[in-house]
Amino acid sequence: MPKVSEDHLAARRRQILDGARRCFAEHGYDRATVRRLEQSIGLSRGAIFHHFRDKDSLFFELAREDAERMADVASREGLIQVMRDMLAAPEEFDWLATRLEIARKLRNDPVFHQGWAERSAELSAATSERLRRQKQAGRLRDDVPGEVLQTYLDLVLDGLVARLASGDDPTELSAVLDLVEDSVRQPN
Amino acid sequence: MPKVSEDHLAARRRQILDGARRCFAEHGYDRATVRRLEQSIGLSRGAIFHHFRDKDSLFFELAREDAERMADVASREGLIQVMRDMLAAPEEFDWLATRLEIARKLRNDPVFHQGWAERSAELSAATSERLRRQKQAGRLRDDVPGEVLQTYLDLVLDGLVARLASGDDPTELSAVLDLVEDSVRQPN
Repeated sequence: MPKVSEDHLAARRRQILDGARRCFAEHGYDRATVRRLEQSIGLSRGAIFHHFRDKDSLFFELAREDAERMADVASREGLIQVMRDMLAAPEEFDWLATRLEIARKLRNDPVFHQGWAERSAELSAATSERLRRQKQAGRLRDDVPGEVLQTYLDLVLDGLVARLASGDDPTELSAVLDLVEDSVRQPN
Repeated sequence: MPKVSEDHLAARRRQILDGARRCFAEHGYDRATVRRLEQSIGLSRGAIFHHFRDKDSLFFELAREDAERMADVASREGLIQVMRDMLAAPEEFDWLATRLEIARKLRNDPVFHQGWAERSAELSAATSERLRRQKQAGRLRDDVPGEVLQTYLDLVLDGLVARLASGDDPTELSAVLDLVEDSVRQPN
């Protein structure tokens, strides 16, 4: 494919994803209808769904982008740093709330669950690998299995998203993350 | 009011609340329309809204009932026991998911936020009072302010609801609660 077309294709995909993210953030997962997606993106449904099969494909691609970015931080600095980054980016809170709105769908729709799990796999792998290295280095408590620590951090992440999305004060939540960090560490 | 009418009134309110709880659990907060509420409850909208002003009043009354029951447990056995009770009641997970679905509304709708906060106040007070007693008894870590411990437990509660609502395994989550319990205790 010639360079110009590739650039054009990438720019068009970017336009669609950025618009879709704004639309989900503003209206929530359920209420981001095709009509609203068209308005936020500035393209017709024909043009949008030429690039992405359907609304869920769009949503999963945004989730995959998140997971990739978070996995990068988690791998270098741990999942707690991912959470600290969330506290520092209030403009993202509306988008984060969509993670909560899909819980019911995750439980009741196996295809959706599978799609979501595939996109989140990179973050899980990065967190698990980082926990393994920290344990080897003696920085992690060793009286609790690694999988329990990972489930704990995943739960704290969801809890943090819920509190942020509900309007809690990020400063208070930051002190909570200190406590969480302390609770997974090897006591001195 | 004669006894018979009081009994009748209480039974009618109970019928409405039980039906509304089933409706919210099945469809989620947003999709529990007035038509669906009528179907689940088995009464006309006129009859329903004779007893409760609107959909939010119904929802808040259910939240108040929850908070009252949870506050009772939290006051005697702590908020972590409230969470253990959740793990033991899978039939409640669908209803619990509604707690997540209202996060966006809590943040963007001050009247709704106020209504919700009033109904949850009893649980917050019970948790706070229990934490104070535990601290006095030397059972709680004293290197972290009580408010931070309370925010931490609230966050864990929301995270637990999110993981349960998404379909996580309650057995794994139970091990996480052991870790949480350990992390608020005074080290020996």
